[in-house]
Amino acid sequence: MIKYKLTVAYDGTSYGGWQIQPNAISIQELIEKALSTILRAPTKISGSGRTDAGVHALGQTAHFVAEQLEPGRVQKSLNGLLPPDIRILQIEEVESSFHARYTASSKEYHYHLASVIDPFNRLYAYHPHTSLDINLLQSAAQCFIGSHDFTSFANDSGDEDKSFVRTIFRLDCCPEEKGIRLEFEGDGFLYKMVRNITGTLVAAASGKLPVDEIPRIFDAKDRRKAPAAAPALGLFLVNVNYNSLKEEKTGAETGCFSCG
Amino acid sequence: MIKYKLTVAYDGTSYGGWQIQPNAISIQELIEKALSTILRAPTKISGSGRTDAGVHALGQTAHFVAEQLEPGRVQKSLNGLLPPDIRILQIEEVESSFHARYTASSKEYHYHLASVIDPFNRLYAYHPHTSLDINLLQSAAQCFIGSHDFTSFANDSGDEDKSFVRTIFRLDCCPEEKGIRLEFEGDGFLYKMVRNITGTLVAAASGKLPVDEIPRIFDAKDRRKAPAAAPALGLFLVNVNYNSLKEEKTGAETGCFSCG
Repeated sequence: MIKYKLTVAYDGTSYGGWQIQPNAISIQELIEKALSTILRAPTKISGSGRTDAGVHALGQTAHFVAEQLEPGRVQKSLNGLLPPDIRILQIEEVESSFHARYTASSKEYHYHLASVIDPFNRLYAYHPHTSLDINLLQSAAQCFIGSHDFTSFANDSGDEDKSFVRTIFRLDCCPEEKGIRLEFEGDGFLYKMVRNITGTLVAAASGKLPVDEIPRIFDAKDRRKAPAAAPALGLFLVNVNYNSLKEEKTGAETGCFSCG
Repeated sequence: MIKYKLTVAYDGTSYGGWQIQPNAISIQELIEKALSTILRAPTKISGSGRTDAGVHALGQTAHFVAEQLEPGRVQKSLNGLLPPDIRILQIEEVESSFHARYTASSKEYHYHLASVIDPFNRLYAYHPHTSLDINLLQSAAQCFIGSHDFTSFANDSGDEDKSFVRTIFRLDCCPEEKGIRLEFEGDGFLYKMVRNITGTLVAAASGKLPVDEIPRIFDAKDRRKAPAAAPALGLFLVNVNYNSLKEEKTGAETGCFSCG
């Protein structure tokens, strides 16, 4: 048996999320069903992590184990069976030690904030109905870079033994034609962490939350002390990295303002 | 009473088309309802022409007559009442002789052909499931430029007195990152004419229809002699021009290959 890595893009609008669940159609479920049909054997896939209902992906990853197969051919067959809002971008053979979740070195998420409602982008960007100050946004973003206990920005249910420390390598604010793209890169993200941080950034950038309140929210270690999460629709899982030698990618190189 | 011109963008996916009709929600109907609420008087709008179910617009136009109003304020109120897939881009006072349909000098449509299925563009481009030869596409497009009797490319029901002669000023084939954009500009388009021409262009570019058959299809003056229409979802009404002195816009200037 051989291990394969899948790279997947999807529009999350119509789904209950990545992960198989009882009362909604999930992306994982549709891929497993198609893969099992094509390989003529029940086949489970294991993702890099779940994405919530309405969250999109440009580069979600997963792995599965199967008899030797032709990656290009199986990719084509999968895309033939899957709906057009889920696309398999790549299938590649990987070492047996590869694990979509546990061997990932970093993850990259983008959150799109729209300054106007665009009929053709309304499912892919959040319009906060308030104007945002880019300087306040950048100052607020700076508070999140580095290693922190993110308890106040996580919706994970209370597991006493769990560590809520995560490291954000990069949080860039990139002006776009009709809004701002927030680029997050970190070693891992807790449940709803990107949306919770974005909600706090929007509160700060709109003047509702003083930036110097943010360290106090961290210290409280209480989700209820932070502003509400930003909605799912603006969020994209862009990339899951497995390089042990992470290539340095800074705001300067990508044409964005670094908030840090 | 004063005449006003509306410029409107919409994602046509969820609508039965522009025009008010018995069994589907139309864009015209929603705008009239919102406008009548805001102006506190029943107000009808008259569009530059209908767009079909599923067809999009970046710059549809319409006119209406009302008491003096503040255009910016009414625009904001309309966008507050309308769903996010319909946006009023502009309201401007026009001369009483203006008519959204009858004083238009030209119309511009774009049709997007996708070379791959993109989850985030699946509602805005047609993937023909066949590869297209750009040279054949350009040769075929050349047959449509100029003044012709477009009976074979129109779905208008048989009105003996009606003229089916229209003039296409420009039909450019513009390569895009993930496909080809066809740009049509003409003095007017018959019912389903852009989609019917696109269907024939795709048939030619995929090698199914010899390009030298196209003049014979024109000569037959019979819709049944031409290939099937391309689907609605790839089509955008981009612009309705009212300039008596039309600015020359050629493929060379816009960075596209001119097919002519």
